Amino acid sequence: MTISPLALPFPDLPAIAGVTPRVARARYKNWDRCDLTFVTLDPGTTVAGVLTQSKCPSPEVEWCRRALVMGQARALVVNAGNSNAFTGDRGRAAVEAIAAHTARDLGCQPSDVFVASTGVIGVPLPIDKAEAGLAAAFEAQPCSWQEAAETIMTTDTFAKAAYSQAVIGGTTVNLVGIIKGSGMIAPDMATMLGFVFTDAAVEPGFLQRALGDANLSSFSCITVDSDTSTSDTVLAFATGRAGNPLLADIEDDGADAFRAALADLCLQLAHLVVRDGEGATKFIRVDVEGAESDRSARRIALSIANSPLVKTAIAGEDANWGRVVMAVGKAGEPAERDRLAIRFGATQVAAGGLALADYDEAPVAAHLKGSDIEIGVDLGLGDGRATVWTCDLTDGYISINADYRS
Amino acid sequence: MTISPLALPFPDLPAIAGVTPRVARARYKNWDRCDLTFVTLDPGTTVAGVLTQSKCPSPEVEWCRRALVMGQARALVVNAGNSNAFTGDRGRAAVEAIAAHTARDLGCQPSDVFVASTGVIGVPLPIDKAEAGLAAAFEAQPCSWQEAAETIMTTDTFAKAAYSQAVIGGTTVNLVGIIKGSGMIAPDMATMLGFVFTDAAVEPGFLQRALGDANLSSFSCITVDSDTSTSDTVLAFATGRAGNPLLADIEDDGADAFRAALADLCLQLAHLVVRDGEGATKFIRVDVEGAESDRSARRIALSIANSPLVKTAIAGEDANWGRVVMAVGKAGEPAERDRLAIRFGATQVAAGGLALADYDEAPVAAHLKGSDIEIGVDLGLGDGRATVWTCDLTDGYISINADYRS
Repeated sequence: MTISPLALPFPDLPAIAGVTPRVARARYKNWDRCDLTFVTLDPGTTVAGVLTQSKCPSPEVEWCRRALVMGQARALVVNAGNSNAFTGDRGRAAVEAIAAHTARDLGCQPSDVFVASTGVIGVPLPIDKAEAGLAAAFEAQPCSWQEAAETIMTTDTFAKAAYSQAVIGGTTVNLVGIIKGSGMIAPDMATMLGFVFTDAAVEPGFLQRALGDANLSSFSCITVDSDTSTSDTVLAFATGRAGNPLLADIEDDGADAFRAALADLCLQLAHLVVRDGEGATKFIRVDVEGAESDRSARRIALSIANSPLVKTAIAGEDANWGRVVMAVGKAGEPAERDRLAIRFGATQVAAGGLALADYDEAPVAAHLKGSDIEIGVDLGLGDGRATVWTCDLTDGYISINADYRS
Repeated sequence: MTISPLALPFPDLPAIAGVTPRVARARYKNWDRCDLTFVTLDPGTTVAGVLTQSKCPSPEVEWCRRALVMGQARALVVNAGNSNAFTGDRGRAAVEAIAAHTARDLGCQPSDVFVASTGVIGVPLPIDKAEAGLAAAFEAQPCSWQEAAETIMTTDTFAKAAYSQAVIGGTTVNLVGIIKGSGMIAPDMATMLGFVFTDAAVEPGFLQRALGDANLSSFSCITVDSDTSTSDTVLAFATGRAGNPLLADIEDDGADAFRAALADLCLQLAHLVVRDGEGATKFIRVDVEGAESDRSARRIALSIANSPLVKTAIAGEDANWGRVVMAVGKAGEPAERDRLAIRFGATQVAAGGLALADYDEAPVAAHLKGSDIEIGVDLGLGDGRATVWTCDLTDGYISINADYRS
């Protein structure tokens, strides 16, 4: 697998006090790599999460949904290579076994253990391999963020992580996130598997609210292929080890700074997922303004971002703005053809329902030859606006997905 | 362009009394082929239509929508190579010029002239070329159905037509349809450009109702890429020359037979469009049953049929039924993971929320090697059912659409 041409280098990341990642070989597939990530969290760590909206979620997702109610976490276990989704009682038993095993080792409650798995659907996660992997992880030395980010990968072509900071009541807190996912990325949900760790002290209800808001402007604004995984999970863990005054309310000192730092981190992570979109060669930003509402703008932006015809045109570096018109028209949202304006990059190509009389394709063609593409649409109707991000659709997507299992 | 491996041979078709097709070279693109189709219809011909639901329709679509109110037709003009969509006043003027020119030649009202165009969006249809093409068509000899079907093609790889018959009050009536379209095919609308001609005598209101019903079980049940054209148009013309007692009501003798023949014809035409889906190598039927309602079943079926991950798996002949679970889960419709059953062809692969214990991939792999694929889903919730058709997603789709304009 070649590395995405849109890949970014792995960033320098600080340790997060109270967070200890380890990795091990559970050998969920016939491969020689670490595929089990085991992160221990100091007592007192709070947790929040956003999970797939799929009606057929994995047992891991159901487990996390229940465990999140308690708001406390002591460990995270991530399995790569097998999603354990659609596996009935055996799948549920595997998750319970992982939680019980970890709780026993750490002396905590099973509901303090969060589990996520990614990979093929329909094959029960083998409990013996999971338990052996856990035992090995428990004995292993702590690992780097990069090793953890690599271990949660499946079809990803590069390890993805980001970092941000905030000051809360004079105390600087750190946030680190790792994420994986490059297919089945769709907007009305979280993303594949993303994990945020902070040393901030945050009450779980407030953490949930901050994460939910951050999700709306990050993971919910990206799309690779419009497909929605059965396993998508984003969890945020806050150890409190930074020693800041506990954040519990939106009015608290530093609450805005923390929310901004979390939103920034989530947006960085979301962009990395798009940059590793299966077969992607272009990172595409779609800005819609002038819609009747923000919600309407977002639906139109996603209609553009999900259109195979738009995405293949960008792949071909073809300034086929007519397909943008098509995608606006099919969104089912208020639009008036004769008020519509469209730009590629900084170049206006159409306005008032037709191509600009002096429209020159040269600057647009130059923009499309780059790797960062902007499509702008002004509907001319109201104040609604939205930005979403996607990638182009290429042969690479086909070849990755036509033989993923084999 | 190689011919679709799913292509069917052009059928033997009868002439339809009162319908005279002709073709000509308007040279809308720099090509040496006929690209203007001109069909004259005897006085007294009635017409019905279903048109794109795009909010940014072409001026042709707007023209037809208005003209359909009159219910009468004397001519159809189809331009290939330029859709004339998103072209402002100049595009509207081109349609009006075509209708006026034709009306003048035939001695009819402009509203008796129906116009459809297909091709690139955003370039005004050149009126001089259209008028010259019309003049040439007017002088030309009548042509065969095959020539007409070839002349409306754009990225199509084979000419598409179908035939059916009905008996109305002892009189046999004939129906012939031609259709084009292999991309931008989405379900909540008509299809690209389809034209049905019958010698039956049918009151326009009844014809509209029969066409609307036929559309719901044919063109609205196919999807190639989930994109929706600004120009999609299906028109049905009835010359009345067969001499049957006028069909005007659902209770009339022969009404059921005519509706069935029209629905059959539309389904044949819809299947041909899928068989020419851009890059298609597999014709895929998706059956959903056991849903809470037919509407819910149809949405789930379309979620499966539109999923890039399902479509690439079929392209790779990969029995990755987990992606079907994913697509059911993301549809947003009632579904219970642990009641879900899935089959490929005749082979049940999963039931009760997990893979069948004795599930053998061999017969499924054999089924997937064929060109006609069936995916069946039973939700186990109610009596709702639906069937939709699609094709696989391959490299061919990418290469066709990444450089269509160039």
